[in-house]
Amino acid sequence: MPATIDRSLEERAINTIRMLSVDAVQQANSGHPGLPMGAAGMAYVLWTEYLKHNPRNPSWPDHDRFVLSAGHGSALIYSLLHLTGYDLSLDEVKNFRQLGSKTPGHPENFMTPGVEVTTGPLGQGFANGVGMAIAEAYLAARYNRPGHHIIDHYTYGLVSDGDIVEGVAMEAASIAGHLQLGKLIYLYDANDITLAGTANISMTENTAARFEAQGWHVQSIDGMDTDAVRGALDAARGETNRPSIIIASTVIGYGSPAKAGTSGVHGSPLGPDEVAATKERLGWPLEPAFYLPEDALALFRSAVDRGAGDEAAWNAAFDAYAADYPDLAAELWQALAGDLPEGWDAGLPSWQTGDKAVSTRKASEAVIQAFFENVPGFIGGSADLNPSTNTGMKGGGDFGPAPAGGIQGALGGGWSYAGRNIHWGIREHAMGSAVNGMAAHGGVLPFSATFLVFADYMRPPIRLAALSHYRSIFVFTHDSIAVGEDGPTHEPVEQIMSLRLIPNLTVIRPADANETAEAWQVALEHRDGPVVLVFSRQDLAILDRSGARGSLDEGAYILQEPDRRPDVVLIGTGSEVELAVKAAALLHEHDIAARVVSMPSWELFEQQPEQYRESVLGPDGTHRLSVEAGVTTGWQRYTGSHGGSVGIDRFGASGPGGKVLQHFGFTKEHVAAEALRLLNRKAEADAIDTWTARGETAGKEAKGDQGHS
Amino acid sequence: MPATIDRSLEERAINTIRMLSVDAVQQANSGHPGLPMGAAGMAYVLWTEYLKHNPRNPSWPDHDRFVLSAGHGSALIYSLLHLTGYDLSLDEVKNFRQLGSKTPGHPENFMTPGVEVTTGPLGQGFANGVGMAIAEAYLAARYNRPGHHIIDHYTYGLVSDGDIVEGVAMEAASIAGHLQLGKLIYLYDANDITLAGTANISMTENTAARFEAQGWHVQSIDGMDTDAVRGALDAARGETNRPSIIIASTVIGYGSPAKAGTSGVHGSPLGPDEVAATKERLGWPLEPAFYLPEDALALFRSAVDRGAGDEAAWNAAFDAYAADYPDLAAELWQALAGDLPEGWDAGLPSWQTGDKAVSTRKASEAVIQAFFENVPGFIGGSADLNPSTNTGMKGGGDFGPAPAGGIQGALGGGWSYAGRNIHWGIREHAMGSAVNGMAAHGGVLPFSATFLVFADYMRPPIRLAALSHYRSIFVFTHDSIAVGEDGPTHEPVEQIMSLRLIPNLTVIRPADANETAEAWQVALEHRDGPVVLVFSRQDLAILDRSGARGSLDEGAYILQEPDRRPDVVLIGTGSEVELAVKAAALLHEHDIAARVVSMPSWELFEQQPEQYRESVLGPDGTHRLSVEAGVTTGWQRYTGSHGGSVGIDRFGASGPGGKVLQHFGFTKEHVAAEALRLLNRKAEADAIDTWTARGETAGKEAKGDQGHS
Repeated sequence: MPATIDRSLEERAINTIRMLSVDAVQQANSGHPGLPMGAAGMAYVLWTEYLKHNPRNPSWPDHDRFVLSAGHGSALIYSLLHLTGYDLSLDEVKNFRQLGSKTPGHPENFMTPGVEVTTGPLGQGFANGVGMAIAEAYLAARYNRPGHHIIDHYTYGLVSDGDIVEGVAMEAASIAGHLQLGKLIYLYDANDITLAGTANISMTENTAARFEAQGWHVQSIDGMDTDAVRGALDAARGETNRPSIIIASTVIGYGSPAKAGTSGVHGSPLGPDEVAATKERLGWPLEPAFYLPEDALALFRSAVDRGAGDEAAWNAAFDAYAADYPDLAAELWQALAGDLPEGWDAGLPSWQTGDKAVSTRKASEAVIQAFFENVPGFIGGSADLNPSTNTGMKGGGDFGPAPAGGIQGALGGGWSYAGRNIHWGIREHAMGSAVNGMAAHGGVLPFSATFLVFADYMRPPIRLAALSHYRSIFVFTHDSIAVGEDGPTHEPVEQIMSLRLIPNLTVIRPADANETAEAWQVALEHRDGPVVLVFSRQDLAILDRSGARGSLDEGAYILQEPDRRPDVVLIGTGSEVELAVKAAALLHEHDIAARVVSMPSWELFEQQPEQYRESVLGPDGTHRLSVEAGVTTGWQRYTGSHGGSVGIDRFGASGPGGKVLQHFGFTKEHVAAEALRLLNRKAEADAIDTWTARGETAGKEAKGDQGHS
Repeated sequence: MPATIDRSLEERAINTIRMLSVDAVQQANSGHPGLPMGAAGMAYVLWTEYLKHNPRNPSWPDHDRFVLSAGHGSALIYSLLHLTGYDLSLDEVKNFRQLGSKTPGHPENFMTPGVEVTTGPLGQGFANGVGMAIAEAYLAARYNRPGHHIIDHYTYGLVSDGDIVEGVAMEAASIAGHLQLGKLIYLYDANDITLAGTANISMTENTAARFEAQGWHVQSIDGMDTDAVRGALDAARGETNRPSIIIASTVIGYGSPAKAGTSGVHGSPLGPDEVAATKERLGWPLEPAFYLPEDALALFRSAVDRGAGDEAAWNAAFDAYAADYPDLAAELWQALAGDLPEGWDAGLPSWQTGDKAVSTRKASEAVIQAFFENVPGFIGGSADLNPSTNTGMKGGGDFGPAPAGGIQGALGGGWSYAGRNIHWGIREHAMGSAVNGMAAHGGVLPFSATFLVFADYMRPPIRLAALSHYRSIFVFTHDSIAVGEDGPTHEPVEQIMSLRLIPNLTVIRPADANETAEAWQVALEHRDGPVVLVFSRQDLAILDRSGARGSLDEGAYILQEPDRRPDVVLIGTGSEVELAVKAAALLHEHDIAARVVSMPSWELFEQQPEQYRESVLGPDGTHRLSVEAGVTTGWQRYTGSHGGSVGIDRFGASGPGGKVLQHFGFTKEHVAAEALRLLNRKAEADAIDTWTARGETAGKEAKGDQGHS
């Protein structure tokens, strides 16, 4: 706490935040003025007295992170960024919520210098912050040395009533408490008002007690009292073994005579009259709008010099560290730049045709095991599925404090914050969001893992990763109805296509062990957005690629070309490439020349020149048949009017995997028959297609069948 | 608690459950034996002494519900169902996890008599049970009368370590505590073991304290002690104002000498040797497998007579009720049958061409307001978005106990369990899952509502609703980039197509107010699965349907036919139908005959005869252009090789809605130009298409643009 406080200036500074936000919302005639007005005092204290940051270099690695989880209060952060001297002009603030401005409706990390993560969908920021604190703890544990605290910063957040009630935030709170993330500090703007009314119409749990039960350090304060905020922040920083939440009672829309404390001020502008009334009430000049008192602005702008000094001191400290630990310093610097060590993939395994068939999840395990020690930033884990997703790094150490009592499931190498394996628990949603936070933090290359069907549980963070260009890696195994006995609840059918629909997301489904190694190479080297890796549960043959014209890098390539112009092109992905190869052999017996294309990634393929794409798919009019154990909607994009699809447009069924595949037509005979039908050779097709014949009664047999197509 | 207990018989009965489950898993060589072995004692007490049910009529309306939220322990419920006399033969149990059996890997409500809800994806069952308890409370409040307790049953559940840590379950716990659902009782099988190891490697929160903070009645007991289970169930039933959770410590895989208490018994069969060792340890005959001691079986089977008696008594009570309250009884009976009152839709509003434009969310509000009093089972609400989704039923009453203190957001009609409006809070995931539980309970026609972009938060329950044929209605508003200022985090682009990929889900996106009324009619009358209703934020003109050949019921229909054979077919959905109409007029100026098709629902359209479908889309070779403010992948199914799509294959942007639409090419000029391009009239197209010209610089202007196509 500063020795003496000029209370008049403090009030003016706080009102500057309030009125700048109010004017921005009013000018846009759209937005949420209530939160900035209520939380301005807390934000003022945090940003001018506690936050370690350099407005002129938002990417200084050791700055304190700040997450506005309540993203609807975006006017608040734009006000703070402009006032403290970030590269965000007053004109940008005036252009709030306008097309092309740097001040979109909700904060977007890729639009605005100083915005760490994209927020708005409630609860996401809360969990992002947990990921940031994980990244900080990991980097500190790996790189700091006695006398050298190179990585040492806090993650602060401003969270709202709406955030903390979201499941993703409750999961994140649970894992943060478990991991004892002492440098995570959240201010909870408890204004008791949500969009639809008072929070009490749907929310009466004892929040303080809940967070305490989840292992948090909890304080309850009057959030309108700046000294209380200071005291609470000091206490939170003093608590090093638990994350902190400061439950700060505030008045939403503070200052508005007619609307303070009501849901009317949550998501709508005040209106010109109420803006005027508010300014009068707060002793603010009515004109001009966007008025910034000189002394208040100077106070905020002192952050620029302070920040420059802090960063300079850190640079000096880093130099001293680099002198004592040159290798570590070089490794850290490379990691912070997001670069991979040269030769990181030198030891990746490869497989020969004829080697024992292996599932791509197991191949992935071998690949990870081969590179993880070379890539110090690679850190992550599964949602309680290590034995199934095969994503554990053996000997890599387990992240976090050692659990008391008996332990099963540790991966060896001991428990510490330098551990590479994060045990996320059965919290898919928070896992995905925390991975995003880690990626946004930088210095790490984070990943998550679970079954593909549970991608649905974490779809919001996958979308946000794609929108925000996070370098998140999402691993999904058990990628089709071949899951078998676990049944339709665990058998993805629509998930792969559904992920392909998300813009800026790269989805890769390798066909065998060798493509798996290539997929990991792409995933680690991809810099502009998240990558989804989709692996099989079941064993897959090692494909003969001796005749291949291309590789996974191109997204799709000719795996096998017939000795004359192809009559038909079979396009497979993942486990169905092997099936396509077998079908091609069967077609050969019918004197049909079939090209087999392996298409592990639509997105990589789309980046190829048109000429290459046509060379793979064949010219317009080519008969193309897609083969993928998933829904067929979407494949028409590549198969065209002369093509068809073998897929599954209904939910799966419980039974041994091989039998389930057979039951739904994933046999070489059925695939070949569908190709024959494209070529109008119906009689031959019917002769070999036992599946279609049986299919007529399948509806009766399998009571679980359904689907609209 | 029974007066005297034959302890030897009790042990035999419990071991019967254990060994039947173990043998089933072993025979399948797949499954999860650990949970049934540990939880058998609790299940025995609950199913033989507490559960009110009639094995011969699982659909008796007033039976106690039982949810196996830990669906991986499916062998447990199959054992219980067979033993207590449901229509599930021993042969079916022996066919555990086999294709076509009634005993799939995870419980599926549509496969097995007595399975209430489909479980397996963790946390879902927990939230389904909350929905069931809501349905019970509502029906009881609406229909019971002094002396007539027609609806009066409990909802029990068996939940696991994995369930309670999922966000959906934490959200559901929060709303259940808030709503004071006293007749919800969960046994928590706290075996401290998860698939990947001991639960403590990821989970150390104080569960008891957390549930207490969320308003639950919490007891901690030794779950292996049947008397403790009895005592706890008695106490839980005695607590009428809070849901109960009984934290029961159990030993996973109890009885297995080598594997009890380890994660090795969680998800894998014991193996023949360990099965034998377990049988020896428990004093069980090694042969035959599936051995059922006669006295134990008789004990379980007494449920049949008891159940028949209970139901007969209830039938008599219902008759007495019907005598005193014939109208109420008739209404209840109809609701329980899932039928709608005759003429329920008699008063639906209709709109005339030329009427003021209205958003479909507002039209939906008028429609709901017009029918809700006619449909007593219609109950639901939004995730804190009533003022935005327009789904509040004014004067319908608010569900649950009245909150203390000031209240904003109530919808009028008072607070009670007979209230029609459920304030779900900002808990989309639990909302969706609870709606499923309500639908599974029966007697109600439940709905949820939120923004379309947040469909991602509740995708798992939408999928489960489709798989399980629940009659859930999911309303999503703010259905495109026209959301505007809120920006890309709040602008759906991939959501509509992504929902269409889910089998057995009917998605409807009406084009104007009149289609909105028709959409609600379909939604309420659709009996075999969930319906998604997609509404606009922005106002839409009332379409002129005087020339229409069909209606929303057919999924797609010709809205406007040119006076000669069409050169091009414009297919619009929702808000883009109006745009297609305008583009057709513009094309007319270029002497192009354009048919306009409104296609509110792919799934309804797929159910039409092929002849009808061709009559709408035109014969093969027709130039078709889809117009939808969403991703284009998938549309090739209808547009074919001679067609094209106007859509958005990137994330949106923040700005006023109209400007955002324009920015991304949703103008009549651009749509008309794309149609002209299909017809190889490129020069004319370029002349009118200001968007494509500007598009070349749009990438620079809008820094937020991205997308892989």
